[in-house]
Amino acid sequence: MKYDRIREAAYKANMQLPELGLVLFTFGNVSAVDRSLGIFAIKPSGVPYHELSPAKMVIVDFDGNPVEGDLRPSSDTLTHAVLYKHWEHIGGIVHTHSTYATAWAQSQRDIPIFGTTHADHNTVDIPCAPPMEDTMIKGNYEYETGFQIMHCFKEKGLNYEEVEMILVGNHAPFTWGKTPEKAVYNSAVLENIAQMAYLTEQINPTAPRLKGALIKKHFERKHGPDSYYGQ
Amino acid sequence: MKYDRIREAAYKANMQLPELGLVLFTFGNVSAVDRSLGIFAIKPSGVPYHELSPAKMVIVDFDGNPVEGDLRPSSDTLTHAVLYKHWEHIGGIVHTHSTYATAWAQSQRDIPIFGTTHADHNTVDIPCAPPMEDTMIKGNYEYETGFQIMHCFKEKGLNYEEVEMILVGNHAPFTWGKTPEKAVYNSAVLENIAQMAYLTEQINPTAPRLKGALIKKHFERKHGPDSYYGQ
Amino acid sequence: MKYDRIREAAYKANMQLPELGLVLFTFGNVSAVDRSLGIFAIKPSGVPYHELSPAKMVIVDFDGNPVEGDLRPSSDTLTHAVLYKHWEHIGGIVHTHSTYATAWAQSQRDIPIFGTTHADHNTVDIPCAPPMEDTMIKGNYEYETGFQIMHCFKEKGLNYEEVEMILVGNHAPFTWGKTPEKAVYNSAVLENIAQMAYLTEQINPTAPRLKGALIKKHFERKHGPDSYYGQ
Amino acid sequence: MKYDRIREAAYKANMQLPELGLVLFTFGNVSAVDRSLGIFAIKPSGVPYHELSPAKMVIVDFDGNPVEGDLRPSSDTLTHAVLYKHWEHIGGIVHTHSTYATAWAQSQRDIPIFGTTHADHNTVDIPCAPPMEDTMIKGNYEYETGFQIMHCFKEKGLNYEEVEMILVGNHAPFTWGKTPEKAVYNSAVLENIAQMAYLTEQINPTAPRLKGALIKKHFERKHGPDSYYGQ
Repeated sequence: MKYDRIREAAYKANMQLPELGLVLFTFGNVSAVDRSLGIFAIKPSGVPYHELSPAKMVIVDFDGNPVEGDLRPSSDTLTHAVLYKHWEHIGGIVHTHSTYATAWAQSQRDIPIFGTTHADHNTVDIPCAPPMEDTMIKGNYEYETGFQIMHCFKEKGLNYEEVEMILVGNHAPFTWGKTPEKAVYNSAVLENIAQMAYLTEQINPTAPRLKGALIKKHFERKHGPDSYYGQ
Repeated sequence: MKYDRIREAAYKANMQLPELGLVLFTFGNVSAVDRSLGIFAIKPSGVPYHELSPAKMVIVDFDGNPVEGDLRPSSDTLTHAVLYKHWEHIGGIVHTHSTYATAWAQSQRDIPIFGTTHADHNTVDIPCAPPMEDTMIKGNYEYETGFQIMHCFKEKGLNYEEVEMILVGNHAPFTWGKTPEKAVYNSAVLENIAQMAYLTEQINPTAPRLKGALIKKHFERKHGPDSYYGQ
Repeated sequence: MKYDRIREAAYKANMQLPELGLVLFTFGNVSAVDRSLGIFAIKPSGVPYHELSPAKMVIVDFDGNPVEGDLRPSSDTLTHAVLYKHWEHIGGIVHTHSTYATAWAQSQRDIPIFGTTHADHNTVDIPCAPPMEDTMIKGNYEYETGFQIMHCFKEKGLNYEEVEMILVGNHAPFTWGKTPEKAVYNSAVLENIAQMAYLTEQINPTAPRLKGALIKKHFERKHGPDSYYGQ
Repeated sequence: MKYDRIREAAYKANMQLPELGLVLFTFGNVSAVDRSLGIFAIKPSGVPYHELSPAKMVIVDFDGNPVEGDLRPSSDTLTHAVLYKHWEHIGGIVHTHSTYATAWAQSQRDIPIFGTTHADHNTVDIPCAPPMEDTMIKGNYEYETGFQIMHCFKEKGLNYEEVEMILVGNHAPFTWGKTPEKAVYNSAVLENIAQMAYLTEQINPTAPRLKGALIKKHFERKHGPDSYYGQ
């Protein structure tokens, strides 16, 4: 009973992934956190989206221990757990293998900031964390993926509350947000930005990055004290 | 009551954007003008398309002052206002971040006229206005965007009644027309032309522009005194 | 009454174009011929597909003269008329501006035969007729387009009963067939072949053409006395 | 009666192809085997998907002889027969001309393993069998296609139970699996991998292959004794 609300939230957010065209089969998962209870609800591993229900969401604590649920949680659960534990203002996390974002991850390149669609959401290139060291891969892989993400943010001096998305090199994107809905929104935005950046370079291989004044202007239209986008 | 007709027109035109696949989430807006009343109706800022209704359209005058409506108008409202004020035969304006047109805008390139699909609608390359000066960006940004568009047309010697579309460099497309429906039609046509021009250059990097006789022929089939397209 | 059957055939074939994703707005048309009556039925010009009905199809003779119907026929009617008049075994003609085929037409390149999907339908590269001389364009343009198509076939030694598709350079594709349904089928196949040929060259810029034995084998599986595809 | 179960299985699997966007018209087929009866059920040749029913599936033995059914089986039947006869643990086979996988086949290139989506399903590049010798093509073509596939696997030292997909050079993909559903799943995965690999090379022409530790880790997450993906 006490997990009903968060299970419902995780379920609803998961169901948006196929609607937004971000997943093939079961290649993605969303989790939703309840910080007062110290747990999060996450998609069960390998279960098709059309078979999901709130009751099938698995409850896990911030060390990745299963708390409640009959099914095995997503194989990426430990990555979610690490991020929830260390990034205390995240409310939801999404992992997909969406086509264009994954292609950039496979290319091991940051996505350059080419336009205002990007600047509406981020002031920097979308970071691509390098593939992990072999010892990390052979060890607790999904757990280490969480640290690889945090390490990349530290190294690049990024703030997870400002930049809510990353590509894990050779793998695929992770996004997050204050709510699960925002995290899903970010996944769709990232896929869109990734496609347009790819096309931009095809159309003009020497396309310049967006200049500073436009980055600042567009980001501040949507974010911060002087924002004037939305209601 | 007196704004009912124009609110309905703006609403209907806005609802075409998701149907035509031209917007992700709320990244686009349409306005419809009533010149006898000196106002236009525009989408409210950040409201999802499936939550829109005619009553939610915001009424604004040609200086961008809100006239009626409970919601905040689109953040791009001042760009619409400037264009309505100075281009007196426009009936509707559309702004989207449609994928291929935006990629060209990010590439800061005019879209070359490669074929008759393009010539059916324009006799020239589709112009890409350069990014604005930093002082304009830091000033009244959306207002200046309107002037940047008009300035580009002046510089290139274009007539807004003949060429009803532009790319704003690093940003995205704006289109307009005698009616809001025509402006929406132009956005879909632009996206189509942008995709085909991209593919044309990929298939043949030295593809020549369409020759003058074909440009003239196709444009005149659809426009002007001797047009014979349509009923 | 006597045109009911052919109007119905033209209507049904036209309605397949939006279903197959081959047209944006009204950028395409299908005609169906009744050789015993010496006429063909064709889409009216500029009428949206969802407003079409069998009764709105326009009846035209092989010189392009309107025979029956309240609406103006497609602006491409004379091209259809010329082809029906000279290619006596055609039962239907389709013109679209489908994305990939049009990009090849704009590139002014024949589509190379790269695989068996192509060979299942044609033993040769899909021809691209060069843009017309200016005098032809300024003259009876749509009429001359028909001759440009026939001239290209003659020059390349092609048989219109074997190769049922062409790109008109800088313009877009035309396809035909023994029936209007087959002509529509050919338009969809051409678009598919055009997309795959584009991708093939992107993946391998030196991809070789399909070798003769495979061309012959696949074409003969579907065509000729020893065909064994279908029922 | 005794073939009802396998006909139903083949029918259901065939119907997934258009749902997953893997076929245009009739360009694809699925078969399902019943090893206890020594036969398989396969799509009839050239019949549109929306006209299929379980009763229309054709029953064929492992030498390709028709056993039951009023319709002619798929023209690719002998390829299926050869694979069922020699690869004894296959339960279903799929052949499509899906866009991206076919483009790679036309490019005559193996699909490089660029990321974890690929490694989740295969530890090696997806093989592309070279086009056959002319004598094989002129002989029993579809029969020889089966041997060409097996020969390619032998030459590359691949195991058909680990790698369940191949590109036939200049032609298109074949996939298989323990069940018809798994074979269809593999076709969709292959198309997805093919699209992302194409994009990866466009974004970074010198993108490196996935390193060994990641290949091993991701494959073992989904396969083998220590797998922990799914329920």
